Amino acid sequence: MATIHPEPRLVELGRDECLHLLAGEGVGRVVVTQGSLPAAHPVHYVLDGEEVVFRTPRGGTLAAAVMHAVVAFQVDHVDLDTRTGWTVNGIGEAYEVVEPGRLNALQLALSPWWADGDTAHTISIPLQILHGRLTPSRA
Amino acid sequence: MATIHPEPRLVELGRDECLHLLAGEGVGRVVVTQGSLPAAHPVHYVLDGEEVVFRTPRGGTLAAAVMHAVVAFQVDHVDLDTRTGWTVNGIGEAYEVVEPGRLNALQLALSPWWADGDTAHTISIPLQILHGRLTPSRA
Repeated sequence: MATIHPEPRLVELGRDECLHLLAGEGVGRVVVTQGSLPAAHPVHYVLDGEEVVFRTPRGGTLAAAVMHAVVAFQVDHVDLDTRTGWTVNGIGEAYEVVEPGRLNALQLALSPWWADGDTAHTISIPLQILHGRLTPSRA
Repeated sequence: MATIHPEPRLVELGRDECLHLLAGEGVGRVVVTQGSLPAAHPVHYVLDGEEVVFRTPRGGTLAAAVMHAVVAFQVDHVDLDTRTGWTVNGIGEAYEVVEPGRLNALQLALSPWWADGDTAHTISIPLQILHGRLTPSRA
């Protein structure tokens, strides 16, 4: 449920609302620290329970940056014309999915275009922390 | 100009191409480190020369996180249906725009909906470093 604070007019979203919004999108950003600077990398993802799962090419910089690291995952949807939007930021410790049954199930949901199954890591970020809000903060 | 590397099939974008792409969008993400964790916050922005300028509510957490800090700014455009996309990451030291003439000029370009002129900081990020690529990296 959204909680509306009268001052400032900030609408924070609950965990269930955040998960619902994440389930409805397919492109988000892995936010990592690289060379002591933050950077965001778009990925095609699916929501698997309360974990965000995506593929990234084997041997790539993103794979190296996320493996067993605490990273953020961000998705937003902003429409300047209708003046509506939201943003969700999740945080969790990323790990590689290696269990064959789960990999097979995910294979169907993740676009092979983005990163080939044979040549990619399948990475999961359990959303241990999840925040969302309507954006801009002055709704 | 795009440089195409045959192995892996990675298309890096030049600085001019990155600026052109940034000029054509209106929503990007300020990527900061907060509490030692990375986070991304969508903002409505304009490209002013080679600087990204946006407004953020006075006294907010984003204003506190970016002021005189080296931050990243990220914009992407990904279409899962057409399998086309790009991402641009810029890095620079953010500062507040206080010069009245420049503020007036920016006032016209920045949506008052996002953050009122009277109650907002106007923040600029000079894009000292700018990287872009077609996404996914295996185009």
